[in-house]
Amino acid sequence: MQNFVFQNPVKLIMGKGMISSLKDEIPSDRRIMITFGGGSVKRNGVYDQVKDALKGHYTVEFWGIEPNPSVETLRKAVELGKKEKIDYLLAVGGGSVIDGTKLISAALLYDGDPWDLVLAGRRITETVPLATVLTLPATGSEMNNGAVISRTETKEKFAFYSNYPVFSILDPQVTYTLPPHQVACGISDTFVHVMEQYLTVTGQSRVMDRWAEGICQTLVEIAPKIRENQHDYDVMADFMMSATMGLNGFIALGVSQDWATHMIGHELTAIHGLTHGHTLAIVFPGTMNILRKSKGEKIIQMGERVFGITSGTPDERIDATIARTDEFFRSLGLTTRLSEEGIGESTIVEIERRFRERNVHFGENGDVDGVVAGKILRDRI
Amino acid sequence: MQNFVFQNPVKLIMGKGMISSLKDEIPSDRRIMITFGGGSVKRNGVYDQVKDALKGHYTVEFWGIEPNPSVETLRKAVELGKKEKIDYLLAVGGGSVIDGTKLISAALLYDGDPWDLVLAGRRITETVPLATVLTLPATGSEMNNGAVISRTETKEKFAFYSNYPVFSILDPQVTYTLPPHQVACGISDTFVHVMEQYLTVTGQSRVMDRWAEGICQTLVEIAPKIRENQHDYDVMADFMMSATMGLNGFIALGVSQDWATHMIGHELTAIHGLTHGHTLAIVFPGTMNILRKSKGEKIIQMGERVFGITSGTPDERIDATIARTDEFFRSLGLTTRLSEEGIGESTIVEIERRFRERNVHFGENGDVDGVVAGKILRDRI
Repeated sequence: MQNFVFQNPVKLIMGKGMISSLKDEIPSDRRIMITFGGGSVKRNGVYDQVKDALKGHYTVEFWGIEPNPSVETLRKAVELGKKEKIDYLLAVGGGSVIDGTKLISAALLYDGDPWDLVLAGRRITETVPLATVLTLPATGSEMNNGAVISRTETKEKFAFYSNYPVFSILDPQVTYTLPPHQVACGISDTFVHVMEQYLTVTGQSRVMDRWAEGICQTLVEIAPKIRENQHDYDVMADFMMSATMGLNGFIALGVSQDWATHMIGHELTAIHGLTHGHTLAIVFPGTMNILRKSKGEKIIQMGERVFGITSGTPDERIDATIARTDEFFRSLGLTTRLSEEGIGESTIVEIERRFRERNVHFGENGDVDGVVAGKILRDRI
Repeated sequence: MQNFVFQNPVKLIMGKGMISSLKDEIPSDRRIMITFGGGSVKRNGVYDQVKDALKGHYTVEFWGIEPNPSVETLRKAVELGKKEKIDYLLAVGGGSVIDGTKLISAALLYDGDPWDLVLAGRRITETVPLATVLTLPATGSEMNNGAVISRTETKEKFAFYSNYPVFSILDPQVTYTLPPHQVACGISDTFVHVMEQYLTVTGQSRVMDRWAEGICQTLVEIAPKIRENQHDYDVMADFMMSATMGLNGFIALGVSQDWATHMIGHELTAIHGLTHGHTLAIVFPGTMNILRKSKGEKIIQMGERVFGITSGTPDERIDATIARTDEFFRSLGLTTRLSEEGIGESTIVEIERRFRERNVHFGENGDVDGVVAGKILRDRI
């Protein structure tokens, strides 16, 4: 086990009808800006529940935080927030809305351009309090201090760290009407979040291994049930719980982490606009295969505990585990090959170039540079 | 899944040499009272590490918080603390020292007798900040807001809830020199903590089930390794992690809880002075057997996932799982029968009487009263 310091102060409020607790959680004298994505919250009743709960509070609405939130959009929210002297933010949406609102919460207290804060490369802790009502389980942003922000004009996409949400409200019922592709991407995103914190080497922490495997076992078990019926409360609660627990630090205690798949996936989103969770389903089996030497023992452990693969030579077990992982993503209705999305050599060359130029060394061993990223992507053509 | 609200603000500082971070974690202008149990921290070097780290801080020491901390002892600490105008508490010890210090932290801001706060039966949130350096993994007190306090003169033992520690420092190396019986009781305590949050009914939360099972799988795996060599860092870190994660709320999200075994065990400690973890090893198999009707499905799931029991009729699988649980405790070197400790009918009658008099209804179904407690205990003669 590696030494670690852990603290996650988020108040998690989960269950049926819990959106109504907003009224007690946000002090009544706050000037709140509520941030939204598109209009789905108006169709599924979440918007009405939020507005009902906040009757009597001063609220301003900001609409239109897009998937892969862009600094171009967020600048407008910051401008409105400053004008309105906003001192509390409530993000109502999925990971993109929450991520974008994290940047707003820092930028409201900053005089320069919000993009400076993204480029600063350090955690920003001077922020306006932020709470969330989650509508799409996937990114775990509701219970962590990270965000990913894009800059459209330069097709860039970077991680940004600030404060944790004060509280997050999760009502599994809000997932009933999500588009199946978004649910599929949420499951894939969650699965790979867990893998980024798990698929390194064995023997670091038995408890963390079991917990990571436990989330993936859950996802494998519930995925077909969700495809069949998105209105089963307990199953959707398991999904929501998996996504939140998958990236709130609980499974990362004292273990090394990878994140190379995410870094490569971000580029596919930046260049081609693919949904984040979908890019991970394409890239991750390639990461497993190209890094099979350093990750081999852990792949075998994963194959045994998550997929029940117990026979064969080590190489056969690794191959079988990669195949089962690919099948799992395909069972969600996702494509898992670049060619299926019309992506080929020119994109790979561009990503190699970007990684070389930025001189990156991703992965738990720092060995995923442009060359290795190219190999991973070519493995997924 | 049941609705829930969760928040655990404890800063967990874990790893080799982390005790030295005390100097940065406690503001230098605080008047600290450090609380200890017996002298073991002087023999294993923890005392020196703590004092070194706090050079330059104002500190007062209070020694002698005993196993099953008594209000009689704690009153003296409160008196000293008030006289010294203590505004920060540092508990250096196991669950008993930490539990006792939780009551001190509340009582320092209370004018009456500390026992009033225990009897109040509500969470006390006006407290002096409290931090901990854990020396014995077992109770989880380092990362929760609960405590158990005894009153020697009346042989009473009750739960008490207050604030969470500000931070807790866990260095697995401090466990190397623990007496084997204490380690055994710590493992047993951890195992049953998990069971109290798990062994109810199936189908409440797949993730929580996997996480609870993951801790118990870990304990079953490491117990013989610990018996063999208490100086294996990674194994002792797994033990420490299991104990803390076993009772910090992480495995209790949205699921019902039992705690009847603990309530019965507390009486055995109060009457006979048995170590807490040991009482649980005696009582828990009885709880499983007497409540096998309501807990049957979950016992079968536990048997399969924790002990690999997959064949037989449901009743046979339940019997086998109870037998394996009993064997597990015995493998730790603990006795698991009342008669082995010279305890018999007169104690059972006394516990029945106490439960009847207090009109208790323990367990997830509220059906463990004096009569059922008597049955559970007679099952363990």
